[in-house]
Amino acid sequence: MKDKNKKIVSKIRNMDEDFAEWYTDIVKQAGLASYSSVKGCMIIEPYGYSIWESMISELDKKFKETGHQNLYMPMFIPEDLLQKEKNHVEGFAPEVAWVTEGGEEKLATRLCIRPTSETLFCEYYSSIIKSYRDLPKLYNQWCSVVRWEKSTRPFLRSREFLWQEGHTVHAIAQEAIEETLKMFKVYIDFFENFLAIPIICGKKTENEKFAGAIDTYAVEAMMQDGQGLQSATSHYFGDKFARAFDIKYLNSENNLEFVHQTSWGSTTRMIGAVIMVHGDNNGLVLPPKLAPTQIVIVPIASNKPGVLESSRKVYEKLKSKFRIKLDDSDRTPGWKFSQYEMLGIPLRIEIGPKDLENDSITVVRRFDGQKISILLDTPSLETKIFEILDDIQILMFEKAKKRLEEKTKTVKNHDEFIKLTKNHKGFIVGNWCGNSDCEMSIKEETGFTSRCIVSEDEIGNCIYCGKTAKKSVYWGRAY
Amino acid sequence: MKDKNKKIVSKIRNMDEDFAEWYTDIVKQAGLASYSSVKGCMIIEPYGYSIWESMISELDKKFKETGHQNLYMPMFIPEDLLQKEKNHVEGFAPEVAWVTEGGEEKLATRLCIRPTSETLFCEYYSSIIKSYRDLPKLYNQWCSVVRWEKSTRPFLRSREFLWQEGHTVHAIAQEAIEETLKMFKVYIDFFENFLAIPIICGKKTENEKFAGAIDTYAVEAMMQDGQGLQSATSHYFGDKFARAFDIKYLNSENNLEFVHQTSWGSTTRMIGAVIMVHGDNNGLVLPPKLAPTQIVIVPIASNKPGVLESSRKVYEKLKSKFRIKLDDSDRTPGWKFSQYEMLGIPLRIEIGPKDLENDSITVVRRFDGQKISILLDTPSLETKIFEILDDIQILMFEKAKKRLEEKTKTVKNHDEFIKLTKNHKGFIVGNWCGNSDCEMSIKEETGFTSRCIVSEDEIGNCIYCGKTAKKSVYWGRAY
Repeated sequence: MKDKNKKIVSKIRNMDEDFAEWYTDIVKQAGLASYSSVKGCMIIEPYGYSIWESMISELDKKFKETGHQNLYMPMFIPEDLLQKEKNHVEGFAPEVAWVTEGGEEKLATRLCIRPTSETLFCEYYSSIIKSYRDLPKLYNQWCSVVRWEKSTRPFLRSREFLWQEGHTVHAIAQEAIEETLKMFKVYIDFFENFLAIPIICGKKTENEKFAGAIDTYAVEAMMQDGQGLQSATSHYFGDKFARAFDIKYLNSENNLEFVHQTSWGSTTRMIGAVIMVHGDNNGLVLPPKLAPTQIVIVPIASNKPGVLESSRKVYEKLKSKFRIKLDDSDRTPGWKFSQYEMLGIPLRIEIGPKDLENDSITVVRRFDGQKISILLDTPSLETKIFEILDDIQILMFEKAKKRLEEKTKTVKNHDEFIKLTKNHKGFIVGNWCGNSDCEMSIKEETGFTSRCIVSEDEIGNCIYCGKTAKKSVYWGRAY
Repeated sequence: MKDKNKKIVSKIRNMDEDFAEWYTDIVKQAGLASYSSVKGCMIIEPYGYSIWESMISELDKKFKETGHQNLYMPMFIPEDLLQKEKNHVEGFAPEVAWVTEGGEEKLATRLCIRPTSETLFCEYYSSIIKSYRDLPKLYNQWCSVVRWEKSTRPFLRSREFLWQEGHTVHAIAQEAIEETLKMFKVYIDFFENFLAIPIICGKKTENEKFAGAIDTYAVEAMMQDGQGLQSATSHYFGDKFARAFDIKYLNSENNLEFVHQTSWGSTTRMIGAVIMVHGDNNGLVLPPKLAPTQIVIVPIASNKPGVLESSRKVYEKLKSKFRIKLDDSDRTPGWKFSQYEMLGIPLRIEIGPKDLENDSITVVRRFDGQKISILLDTPSLETKIFEILDDIQILMFEKAKKRLEEKTKTVKNHDEFIKLTKNHKGFIVGNWCGNSDCEMSIKEETGFTSRCIVSEDEIGNCIYCGKTAKKSVYWGRAY
C-alpha cells in the first residue's frame, strides 16, 4: 500500500494474492489489449501489437530461412468444404461463426469464418499438385482466425486471435515427419532463445491432439502460477487429409500416390505467455530480443547543468545499435521509472548530476533491479550495453527454467499423485498406461490434464490404474 | 502465334486484342492469385503475396517514420455500432457480410464483418481520449476487409481483400487537414517513386467521396487500356464521426471539445495497378524497388567450362546487395527467359561461353529488352548494377508518365467532350459547374465518371450544361 503512494502509475494487484487479476491489470496498464462492444474479441493495442510485430518479424525470418513462402487464403470456408475430413469437422464445427447473409441476401450455403485453414489449403493443393516435380509445397500464412469461445481472456482465449499457420505437402511420409519435427524445433528455439521461455515439449495424447492429425507436437510453457499454457503446435497428418481431399501426385514411376502433409501454428497467446512467465508486481518484463524498446534513458534532475546534454549524447551514440528511447518530458523521474517498469523495458539508463560527477551513467536491469555503473566516455559503451542485454536475456531464461524445474515433480504411484494434485502448483511427471479412460478420470478427479508425453518407452506402472505403463507424461492444470 | 511455339511458358493472350483476358492470364501464369470454392474471394498465391509483402514493408516504414503505430481491431462490427454515423452506414450496410450464428447458437445481434473500421476506431477513441494531452492518436492497422461485391476480379474487386487503414484523431481541424494531406503525399510518393506509377490526384466530388467524409483525396492511376484505377485514398472527417460517437477532449482551458479525425487506406488493388500499368505481352513487369526478386542469373550452355563457376561467382558477389536468384536448374535457357519475363524480374544476367570469351556478362532489362555488356571482373560491378536498376526504375516511371500525358485530353465544351468520349481511351480534363446532376448525366450518357478534381478555381463553362464552371475535373472510365 505504501508503494502505491510512491508510484503514480502502478495500479496493478499483487500477483501472489490474485494471479488472474494481476494478469488483467498488466494487460490494461501496459496498454496491451482492451475490450470493445464486440463481445469476446480484443483490441490489440499499439504496445501489445508492437510485441506481436517483434514476434512476427523473428518467426517469419525463421520460416523463410527454412524455405517457406507466405500466401493468403480466403477467410471463409463453405460448409461442405469444412465437412470433408471427418475428425477435423467434429473438432471445429461446434465452435465456428457462420456468415449466412451477404449484401442483403441470404446465402445459399453457410460460410464459416476460418477457425484454421487446413480445408482451404487442401482444396488449393488438390488443384495445383500434379507431379512429384510440384513437391514439396512449403506455405505459411499470417492471418486472424475465429473460434466461438464461451469464456474469454485477452490473448489466452479470444473469439478472434492472430496467428500463423504453416501448411506443407510432401511426396513421402518420412519427409513430412521431418518437416513436422523441424518446425517443432523452430518453435522450441524461438521460445527458449527469443522469448527466454523454457518449455516442456513432446507429443500430445490421442485425446488432446489436433482434430485430424496423426501426431501433434506441442510446446508448452509454465506460468508463474504453475499452470501450463500450450503455446505452439506442429502436426503430422500423414495422408489423412490427402485421402479426404484427393490430393495425389504422379511419382517418378508414373504412379498416382497420395501426398503427406503437415501443419504448424503459433498465436498471439504467446504474448500471454510472456506476461505470465516474466511479469512481476511492477508490471511487464520483456526479454531484450523481444522488447520493442530495449532501453529507455531517464535524465535525473534535468534542470542541472549537463544532464540533458549528456542524456542526448548517449541517446545519439546508441540509437543506431539499439531500440532506444529518450524520455526528456517534464514528468518526474519517479513517474518515468514506474511507467517503463510497467512496460517491461529491459534496461533503464539513468543520467543525473551524481552520475556526471563520476563521468558515468547508471544502468538498471528491469528483471532484477540490479544497478550497474558504466563510465560515460568509454569507447566500448555499446559493447558493454550489448553484454548487459545478452546477460539479461540469458538470466531471464535461467530464472524461469529454475522455476519450471522446481515446480515439476515426479510421482511413482496413485497415492503420491492424488495427494500432490491437491496443492501442487506446477507440473507432475507420472507414468501412464496409455488408456484414455485413465486420462479422462485423472482430468475429472484432479483437474490435471496430460500436457504432453515425456517418453514413449517407460518402465513402471500407471499412476492411475497401476497397470503396466507405456509412457511417461507431463500432467498439469492449464489455461 | 509463332511466338507461342518458341516459348513454352507463354500462354497469355495479346493485351491489344483483349486487355481483360490478358490481365486474367498474367494473374494466373505469374502465380499471383487464383480462385477457390469460396465465391468472389481470391487466394493470393506466394508470388502475388511476396509483391504485397514488398508493398507492406515500404508503406509500413513510411507510416512509422511519420509517427504512426499499428494496432489490431476486431473483425466484427455489431449492427448498432455500424449504424451510428448516418452517411457511413448508408454507404456500407448494403454490401456487408453478416454473421448471425456462432458456436451453434443464433446471435442476439447480427455482426457484420468489417468493410472498413471507422466505427470500431471511433468507439475505441471515445473510451481512451480524455484530455488534449491524449492527442493526437496516430494509429494504423493491416488487415483484411469484406465487401459483398456482385462481380469480382482478382485484386481489382474482390469480396475479401487486404489493406491498411490509418485512423487518426486530432484536437483541432487544421491539424487533421494537415494529416490528411500528409498521408495523401505519402501515397503519391509511394506510387511515383516505389511503384513507378504516375498518377492523377486530387479531391473527389461530393458524389464520389467516402461515406462519412467531408473531403476525400484520391490517388488514381491510368491503366494501359486508358481506364482509371482508384488506388489509395485519404479522408478528412472534421468532427462528423466525433459527434456521432461522442469523442470529446478537455482542452487546455478545461472546455470539452469534439476531436477532428482522418482515415486513409491502400489495398491489394495496387497489385492490379502494377500489372496493368507496367505489364506487356510477355507477362508482368516489376519496377526494381518493388520486385521481390530484382535479378535472375541464367547460365547459357552451362555444360561449357567456366559457365557455372562464373555464374556462381557473380551470384556470390551480388547476393548481399540485391534480391537475386541464380537458376542453375536443368531447364533450357529459353524456358528460363520466358519464365522470368512472365514473373517480371527487372534484370536478367546471362553468362555463357561467348560472354566469358570477352570476360563479360550480358544484362537484359525486362521492361524494354535492352542488352548491356559489362566486364566480369570490374571492381565496380555492384555499382554498375545499382545504376542500371536505378535507370530502370526511372525509365519505367517516365514511360508510364508519357502514356498518361498522351492519353489525357482537355476539352472546352459539350460537343468536344461528347465526341471525344465515343472513342477516347484515357482521361479527359473538362470544366464542371459543380452540379451533381451534370455529373450524373455525364456518367449515364458516356460511362465517364469524375475521377478527381484538378482545380477548384477554374474560369470557363461547364462541359455539360455550359453554365459557369467552378472546377476542372478529370473524367474517365474506371475499374
